[in-house]
Amino acid sequence: MHAKDFYCVIMAGGAGRRFWPYSRQAAPKQFIDFFGCGQTLLQQTFDRYRQIVPLENIFVTTHRDYEDKVLEQLPELDASRLIVEDERRNTAPSIAYAAHIIEKLNPQATMVVAPCDHLILKQDLFKEAILKGLDFASGQDALLTLGIQPSRPETGYGYIQIDEEETDGIYKVKTFIEKPAREFAEIFIQSQEFFWNSGIFIWNVEAIHKAFRNYMTEICPYIDSDVPDFTSCPNISIDYSIMEKADNVYVQLCDFGWADLGTWESLYEVAPKDVNRNVVMNGNTLLYNCKNTIVSLPAGQLAVLQDLDGYLVALRDNVVLVCKKDDQNAIRKFVNDVEIKFGDKFS
Amino acid sequence: MHAKDFYCVIMAGGAGRRFWPYSRQAAPKQFIDFFGCGQTLLQQTFDRYRQIVPLENIFVTTHRDYEDKVLEQLPELDASRLIVEDERRNTAPSIAYAAHIIEKLNPQATMVVAPCDHLILKQDLFKEAILKGLDFASGQDALLTLGIQPSRPETGYGYIQIDEEETDGIYKVKTFIEKPAREFAEIFIQSQEFFWNSGIFIWNVEAIHKAFRNYMTEICPYIDSDVPDFTSCPNISIDYSIMEKADNVYVQLCDFGWADLGTWESLYEVAPKDVNRNVVMNGNTLLYNCKNTIVSLPAGQLAVLQDLDGYLVALRDNVVLVCKKDDQNAIRKFVNDVEIKFGDKFS
Repeated sequence: MHAKDFYCVIMAGGAGRRFWPYSRQAAPKQFIDFFGCGQTLLQQTFDRYRQIVPLENIFVTTHRDYEDKVLEQLPELDASRLIVEDERRNTAPSIAYAAHIIEKLNPQATMVVAPCDHLILKQDLFKEAILKGLDFASGQDALLTLGIQPSRPETGYGYIQIDEEETDGIYKVKTFIEKPAREFAEIFIQSQEFFWNSGIFIWNVEAIHKAFRNYMTEICPYIDSDVPDFTSCPNISIDYSIMEKADNVYVQLCDFGWADLGTWESLYEVAPKDVNRNVVMNGNTLLYNCKNTIVSLPAGQLAVLQDLDGYLVALRDNVVLVCKKDDQNAIRKFVNDVEIKFGDKFS
Repeated sequence: MHAKDFYCVIMAGGAGRRFWPYSRQAAPKQFIDFFGCGQTLLQQTFDRYRQIVPLENIFVTTHRDYEDKVLEQLPELDASRLIVEDERRNTAPSIAYAAHIIEKLNPQATMVVAPCDHLILKQDLFKEAILKGLDFASGQDALLTLGIQPSRPETGYGYIQIDEEETDGIYKVKTFIEKPAREFAEIFIQSQEFFWNSGIFIWNVEAIHKAFRNYMTEICPYIDSDVPDFTSCPNISIDYSIMEKADNVYVQLCDFGWADLGTWESLYEVAPKDVNRNVVMNGNTLLYNCKNTIVSLPAGQLAVLQDLDGYLVALRDNVVLVCKKDDQNAIRKFVNDVEIKFGDKFS
């Protein structure tokens, strides 16, 4: 295989509600410069793959609402590489349709499915890992996922248990485990058989096409078409529809300084902390007797906080949120309640 | 005496820093519609005295910075009734100069000194009390202050201890007590000898002029002039310079639903509360497991708060403050720290 056969699909359609109010419907987290580093998460992701696969082989999928935002943030992306969905139907339909488009362009293609809400600290190791995975997946009928060496008993991530069969750091997958309770997460870490599920997948287009035909055949008629019908597709994730069912699933063990920025808690975990374990994302702060707290506000604004332990304080536009940072389900409930009470005024 | 001899001086020059960030240097609390009732505190105060003394007998003192704001908020006020100070020198110089101006207009005048950061719930009883005080003070060389029947052992107010000498609810003052510690405040309440010092004073211009000559003679040369020199005046309060020294000080006992809106805590005390004893001033809120908390944000904004007990959450423009609501000295420190660190960007 050749680099010209390597493709990447960046998934940029998420509504990012778990970062409300910092991310809003009009600007989900992938379009935000989360770290104040001058690049949005989408731009960081694009730049990472830009160094691995040819520019014209990078595709971005997004929702109709964000079409302009993607093109604005990625001036290098040709409009023909933007896949726009009219309806949110989770990852399975998105990936099936992207695979269909890529297969038509190049039946030899091997593709990486790339979420764009990850933090990657070690770019060199990341590039090496992706190329290794592309090599592996291009040569066989296998569905590869990247597993991350866990550093703590995180309960916000999914885990992958490895089987014994191994070749060069790539294992057969024994089973996938959803976000575990604390006590299980601790046992997982000790056993050394469990790895974090990064949600980065690699396969050749023939293999994924076959998997859809085998396990998710009801999606095919809507997607294997030049005019896809997302509305009629089932709303289902690739994990549930394919990865947990297929028998040719492999995991490549990686350690490139990875974090899923899926929740405030995960963002807190990876961000630099002061002596009291507080994290400040952008903005100005004065903290008095605060600890284990994460503060996120736009540049040029000020938060003065006293006596908070384990809180999230997030300010954006016309909304301020102050809540326990480890209660992610609560934030989801807050956003729902806000919508019920105020419509889309604040969401 | 006649109503035409009754005057009122509304003190509207305060910088209102204790309500930061809701009040800002450019808009101290007297210029804010605190209760979202359609009137600022200054407008409420003006309206109250408008019903007691002739319109042309109402004076307003303020700082040069707020001259336009006062005229804009009080269209009925003639510009000749606005006393503008170039320099903040506390209440003694302000009152001395206002008394000088009024005495020149009408040597028979009796004046009320009216702070404009009070909440008055019972307008009828208030009017009755002010008229009674004006009657009392117009006839004799006495310095009268209004004392409020205390309803709780408040530690944020000054107290007045009454002497035995009494005529029709007006007592000789035995002593003034600054904000007391909790245990003293509780004893004060039980003794029934102590009343809250409202800071509303009533005297005829001759009596106050004489008091200044006796106790604060160093102010006179700067103030008894048509071109006052505030900059050269000592920075001193009327309480400290006159009331605590003079031997002709009286207190009239009142109960007209009074609160000094001097601090967030005092505002919290008087405001309507939900079942969890939370107070929301303007804005929209969703509260989860919050109690004893006060939230102040501009109309049209939203605060979503979880797990806060006894906090103040205030949002305005580019600043959010989250702190313990009963720690007033802390707020003063915060504002100082903000100025040291950020200049006047946020103050």
